[in-house]
Amino acid sequence: MLYLIGMGLYDERDISLKGLDILKDSDRIYAEFYTNIFRGDIHKLKIAVGKEITVVGREDIEEKPGENIFRDPKIDVALLVPGDPMVATTHSNIILEAHKLGIKTRIIHASSIYSAVSETGLQTYKFGKTTTIPFPQKNYFPTSPYHVLRDNLRTGLHTLLLLDVRAEDKHYMSIGEAADIMLRMEEEIKDSVFKGDTFCVGVARLGGDQVIKAGDVDEIKCCDFGKPPHALIVPGRLHFMEKEMLELYRVDVIDHV
Amino acid sequence: MLYLIGMGLYDERDISLKGLDILKDSDRIYAEFYTNIFRGDIHKLKIAVGKEITVVGREDIEEKPGENIFRDPKIDVALLVPGDPMVATTHSNIILEAHKLGIKTRIIHASSIYSAVSETGLQTYKFGKTTTIPFPQKNYFPTSPYHVLRDNLRTGLHTLLLLDVRAEDKHYMSIGEAADIMLRMEEEIKDSVFKGDTFCVGVARLGGDQVIKAGDVDEIKCCDFGKPPHALIVPGRLHFMEKEMLELYRVDVIDHV
Repeated sequence: MLYLIGMGLYDERDISLKGLDILKDSDRIYAEFYTNIFRGDIHKLKIAVGKEITVVGREDIEEKPGENIFRDPKIDVALLVPGDPMVATTHSNIILEAHKLGIKTRIIHASSIYSAVSETGLQTYKFGKTTTIPFPQKNYFPTSPYHVLRDNLRTGLHTLLLLDVRAEDKHYMSIGEAADIMLRMEEEIKDSVFKGDTFCVGVARLGGDQVIKAGDVDEIKCCDFGKPPHALIVPGRLHFMEKEMLELYRVDVIDHV
Repeated sequence: MLYLIGMGLYDERDISLKGLDILKDSDRIYAEFYTNIFRGDIHKLKIAVGKEITVVGREDIEEKPGENIFRDPKIDVALLVPGDPMVATTHSNIILEAHKLGIKTRIIHASSIYSAVSETGLQTYKFGKTTTIPFPQKNYFPTSPYHVLRDNLRTGLHTLLLLDVRAEDKHYMSIGEAADIMLRMEEEIKDSVFKGDTFCVGVARLGGDQVIKAGDVDEIKCCDFGKPPHALIVPGRLHFMEKEMLELYRVDVIDHV
């Protein structure tokens, strides 16, 4: 059996009791930290489980996971992943590979930003398509996030904008960088979708020592959100209770750095 | 301090280690089971925590929660909720009430259907707006789910259709009932959005003894998904890996009852 076990939003205490039970019964435990950011201490989890946990990299997982991770169908293997498993395409690939080898699989779910965004007061069911803002390359400046945002706003939906990670040099995009990239898209496309006075919500380290700030892009850009992970939300049409909740997170003058 | 603690998708083992720690340190613990279905055993959780857990109803929560639940700012109160907190509007209301009384709040997140749907292989970021199919009333047959589905399909997005619950008589809508209601909307509106040969995915009891079946509406309608909770997904444009994953869940002839 191969278990994909979610570690949840933030640290080693966000795994479920079910996940911990399975780890204790597993013959071999791996963990990957590259599909998402893990802010906890894996050594503490090793102690709680009483077993070794081997950290694996992108190559181990993406090239022949059947050889590297779950070769033997007779033993129980657990692969720990940050957040909720299967949100990353890589995990679908692992499940498909295991299936081809006749190895049964089970997913243990955990908390994820997709529902945790509701902590802002914005209703989860009113979010449209999610998009990721990529780091611009020298001769490549993709504007797909702008189009996703425009389509969502047209039908009044909220948009969760996830921020790119360059895992190789540990560069996690900040809310400030994301806002600047989106403003550059606005300059190019000029469809009045993301401007300095667009109301948005910045969220950092949800589930941990989180920071949530709501305000105009120009205000949010100047806030210090601290360490990653960050994400940006552009609300669509707001219900009065969503408005009231967002007021709790309004940027004050003292927030500016 | 008021803690809203998610119990996660299915049973009493889906709470996080962080959630359990906080319960152990809380002065008073409440649980509500009406914003979502909880399929676990709350007595087992009482034993794990070593404390009493008081189950509260809709009235306790929605009318004066400040009096019923968290009157005293000097003690730590935990409110257990099924799934991930804040996905229900009720929880926003509780946070706002606590804020008015000067009581600090903290949310402990847990697994939720919003990201767990990715277990089907459908990518979470490609879901559009979510909608709930209501039970038709005598002289009231709302068709908003049909319109949400149509808008999502137009832009190639997947749609998660949650199913109504009549908590008072414990009637949980089944996938079969949901399909029939949607087919009735199709008959009324005739926009070729949801027909007998529309490809869809039925999911039941995600995170527990789950059943996932993919096939045409007419096939899915006839499958026995067992006990609630059920949900229905209508996929939009499929990536080849999404297609490959859904093949794992294809309805076979033997599935028909």
